[in-house]
Amino acid sequence: MSIRHRTYELLEPDETGEDRLSRAVDVGLMALILLNVVSVILSTVEGIYAAAPLAFEVFDRLSVAIFALEYILRVWCSVENPRFQKPFSGRVRYMFTPLALIDLIAIAPLLVPFTGADLRSARTLRLLRMLRVFKFSRYSRGVHVMLDVLKKRKEELVATLGMLVTLLIVSSTVVYYAERNVQPEKFSSIPESMWWGIATLTTVGYGDMAPVTILGRIFGSIVAVGGLLLVALPTGIVGAGFVAEFEKYAFKEGVEEIAETIVEEVERQEIAGESEAETVCPHCGHPVAQAES
Amino acid sequence: MSIRHRTYELLEPDETGEDRLSRAVDVGLMALILLNVVSVILSTVEGIYAAAPLAFEVFDRLSVAIFALEYILRVWCSVENPRFQKPFSGRVRYMFTPLALIDLIAIAPLLVPFTGADLRSARTLRLLRMLRVFKFSRYSRGVHVMLDVLKKRKEELVATLGMLVTLLIVSSTVVYYAERNVQPEKFSSIPESMWWGIATLTTVGYGDMAPVTILGRIFGSIVAVGGLLLVALPTGIVGAGFVAEFEKYAFKEGVEEIAETIVEEVERQEIAGESEAETVCPHCGHPVAQAES
Amino acid sequence: MSIRHRTYELLEPDETGEDRLSRAVDVGLMALILLNVVSVILSTVEGIYAAAPLAFEVFDRLSVAIFALEYILRVWCSVENPRFQKPFSGRVRYMFTPLALIDLIAIAPLLVPFTGADLRSARTLRLLRMLRVFKFSRYSRGVHVMLDVLKKRKEELVATLGMLVTLLIVSSTVVYYAERNVQPEKFSSIPESMWWGIATLTTVGYGDMAPVTILGRIFGSIVAVGGLLLVALPTGIVGAGFVAEFEKYAFKEGVEEIAETIVEEVERQEIAGESEAETVCPHCGHPVAQAES
Amino acid sequence: MSIRHRTYELLEPDETGEDRLSRAVDVGLMALILLNVVSVILSTVEGIYAAAPLAFEVFDRLSVAIFALEYILRVWCSVENPRFQKPFSGRVRYMFTPLALIDLIAIAPLLVPFTGADLRSARTLRLLRMLRVFKFSRYSRGVHVMLDVLKKRKEELVATLGMLVTLLIVSSTVVYYAERNVQPEKFSSIPESMWWGIATLTTVGYGDMAPVTILGRIFGSIVAVGGLLLVALPTGIVGAGFVAEFEKYAFKEGVEEIAETIVEEVERQEIAGESEAETVCPHCGHPVAQAES
Repeated sequence: MSIRHRTYELLEPDETGEDRLSRAVDVGLMALILLNVVSVILSTVEGIYAAAPLAFEVFDRLSVAIFALEYILRVWCSVENPRFQKPFSGRVRYMFTPLALIDLIAIAPLLVPFTGADLRSARTLRLLRMLRVFKFSRYSRGVHVMLDVLKKRKEELVATLGMLVTLLIVSSTVVYYAERNVQPEKFSSIPESMWWGIATLTTVGYGDMAPVTILGRIFGSIVAVGGLLLVALPTGIVGAGFVAEFEKYAFKEGVEEIAETIVEEVERQEIAGESEAETVCPHCGHPVAQAES
Repeated sequence: MSIRHRTYELLEPDETGEDRLSRAVDVGLMALILLNVVSVILSTVEGIYAAAPLAFEVFDRLSVAIFALEYILRVWCSVENPRFQKPFSGRVRYMFTPLALIDLIAIAPLLVPFTGADLRSARTLRLLRMLRVFKFSRYSRGVHVMLDVLKKRKEELVATLGMLVTLLIVSSTVVYYAERNVQPEKFSSIPESMWWGIATLTTVGYGDMAPVTILGRIFGSIVAVGGLLLVALPTGIVGAGFVAEFEKYAFKEGVEEIAETIVEEVERQEIAGESEAETVCPHCGHPVAQAES
Repeated sequence: MSIRHRTYELLEPDETGEDRLSRAVDVGLMALILLNVVSVILSTVEGIYAAAPLAFEVFDRLSVAIFALEYILRVWCSVENPRFQKPFSGRVRYMFTPLALIDLIAIAPLLVPFTGADLRSARTLRLLRMLRVFKFSRYSRGVHVMLDVLKKRKEELVATLGMLVTLLIVSSTVVYYAERNVQPEKFSSIPESMWWGIATLTTVGYGDMAPVTILGRIFGSIVAVGGLLLVALPTGIVGAGFVAEFEKYAFKEGVEEIAETIVEEVERQEIAGESEAETVCPHCGHPVAQAES
Repeated sequence: MSIRHRTYELLEPDETGEDRLSRAVDVGLMALILLNVVSVILSTVEGIYAAAPLAFEVFDRLSVAIFALEYILRVWCSVENPRFQKPFSGRVRYMFTPLALIDLIAIAPLLVPFTGADLRSARTLRLLRMLRVFKFSRYSRGVHVMLDVLKKRKEELVATLGMLVTLLIVSSTVVYYAERNVQPEKFSSIPESMWWGIATLTTVGYGDMAPVTILGRIFGSIVAVGGLLLVALPTGIVGAGFVAEFEKYAFKEGVEEIAETIVEEVERQEIAGESEAETVCPHCGHPVAQAES
């Protein structure tokens, strides 16, 4: 029981910054993920993989073994988390959390028996290992903030996306209609034309497809300028989300500062008022002084 | 009369969220619009259309029939709307509202007798069905917000557009002058050159046209950097529109919070002041007490 | 004298909106400028100019005549403006204002005797007429606002430009060094490489030049990402200029609202305080009431 | 000692604006840096360098000599700066400051004996002179502000960069998987695919690589749209940094204005209250008057 709790502490990101061993486990796991990502990237470069195919294989088997052990330990310890206390149903529920599913995907190649598979499908399976990059999300605060802002601004973003899609569909249809006879090999259908539309709306502009007719170019111009306005919206919305966070803080500080200034001012006024308002007793004519305490 | 009112309720977007049947009609109509858009997009892909031309034809006839029924019902019920109460002139006025015109366009193919038309013009007419995508605007709040912001910031946007057009015209003329002798097939006239100008100002940059002379590239650089500044304007303007909305709300909350804080503070001061200010007449020694109520 | 004053009124943009003739002169001059711009643009399209060369020539001669008359009248009336009161030195000073210089440029083709010039130089001179587009600036408020924001944010923009130029120079040098041996025809010198740098920093990305070496692509990536941050600066700076204008207004309103709320609150407190603070005369025990006025 | 202090004053940027000689030294050094940068740029243009190779060589030798002298003087005077007071250890510490290292790099070609080097390595060494552009940073305030904003917003920028890199890796892997069989010469490995990913995420879009398969284009679209949102973040973050600076100032002014308004109001209330609150003793009829001071 005590071992399970300690294992749980070691595997969870250490936020106190005092548990050195837990920190070492975190850094070790992150380094392993990073090395896996780099390994998959480099393994696709012909020359590098050919130089040491065994090293890549051994490193991958080792990583899968470690990630599998990590997964088993995490499932075992998950009952230490108050959210998943029940021995059986708690562990099953933990196995369906997004983070646990990402961990499961990371060891997927182990589950698929691909000994008999040919070289090509083996290569494809190797790419699946890239999904291990998502294991980083456990340690990233940026992802949570981003998701928060997206969630808060959901309605505006959906509306913007709706307008983007409508502009995309209409412009792709018009440009398809204008260009299909002049460039039938490029603008052969509306889905093809939509690829041009996305490249233009997002101002990427690859140039693999570009309208040449007058009608196509006029609509292309409208899309490019309209894209600027629509691109301005998520910038404004998401940007404003961040600005709002800072502002909220700044505003709170400002309010406290104002309140403080006013209180000081009022106090000064009161003191001044009291000394000025020095009243006299109407009967004896002498000023009514403060009581010496 | 009661049937007409119920029909009106069913067709209008249900905002209370309680009328389940009205909600079902909304969802059904939106699904039909979506299916129509997808159908037109897929029908332009050679292989897909060839696989089942009849299915596409039948689905389109059916959709037109439903949209035609919807249009007739909407015109019939429009008198339920207080804005269009008069039986005849009210309905005519309703038929000229933007949303009703969009509904009419959606059934336009029905109105055009194209039985004798050849395959090619039939294809073109099919594209007109894409205009049904605008029927979505009835259900989208984003469109209204966008139009509001554009209307409020009209003057700034017109000024920005004016500067964009002036920069576009001047730069296109200069680059046309610089490039026409070196790349006569690309920069053959100022309108051609303006296509390059738009792609550069909006930072799309297809690359189908690019200056190669020194003068052309110097002006191209000025346009690209100037475009950044001018693109920053709509971003600032439209983005600020959204920020302003949030700020307005945040400011109001802030004002209330400040007022509350101050009132509390002043109250505390008053109470403190009163108890401190307890004066005694120095001559008779008795305090100038509060009246017991 | 009275005629000169009336002429002055007619030529200046009418801001009261009541002088119908002055408004007509404005609209007429703006329409003539617009027609001149359209005429120059169309005259470069081979087919259109060839269809009616005489019409283009006659229209241009007529326009120059009208613009020349306008210029003479403006110089003549300029003494009506309090800034240029002196008959001779005032008019000379007026002739050197930016707007007067633009007007002079617009009639420049008249001053150059090009009867003996060959067709090609005549074409070039025709392009000079495009400068008439700047005559619009007299009527545009956007230009003034833009210049204001640029002037106010001058220091920040100069600093941003400085960083942009430094990043441009360093990255162009590195990419030139990396690519000159692999693509000597494209990255043949640093100035050539800077054209790539500008297209990348501004995210235009024509694609006429792109690094292919590893070093070139690594630096290209740094430039592209660095460009995003530097592009964010003018957006922030210029955008903030506009936001600040709106904010300033909103803030002033907010301050007035706060002040009002507080004054009301303080008044209420005073009234409440007075009735609560109902003091009694310590000698006779009766409350000290307010004097009935 | 007095000479050393005067030399120190002359070399440091003059901020008082009164020391004309110091200002002249600043302008002279900046002009020399600028001329060096221009000289390196022009020396890579074949025709220009060939026209006067000796002039370029002489100018470079002269510049190196001046910069070397400047460096020696700066090290000699550095002890005048209170931060580096100790004759030996102070000077050594100064030599390891960023600005001193930049100055050292600027004279690096002097330290490398390249008399025996062939033409090609001489050319490469010439490019090193471009590093002199960083000597400008001594005089630029923009760099400091930029570094400040980057430092303040470090956490958000790192998080954004993390998300950008994750999106880049995942999308590059997917597009590599989708395109490697169709365009093996372009999408030959994940690092190659990442070049496409960067060009798309930053919306540069060279067009030298573009997906053609359906899967590749769907993911390309997600990357392009996702790039807009992620690009919006640094814009929002860095932009907000500047806005916040302006706001902070505006807020402070606003707070002072509010405080002033309230104090005036409260004062007026007090005065009004006092004159209104002129109470009379109801029993003897005499007003409870103020003491004549």
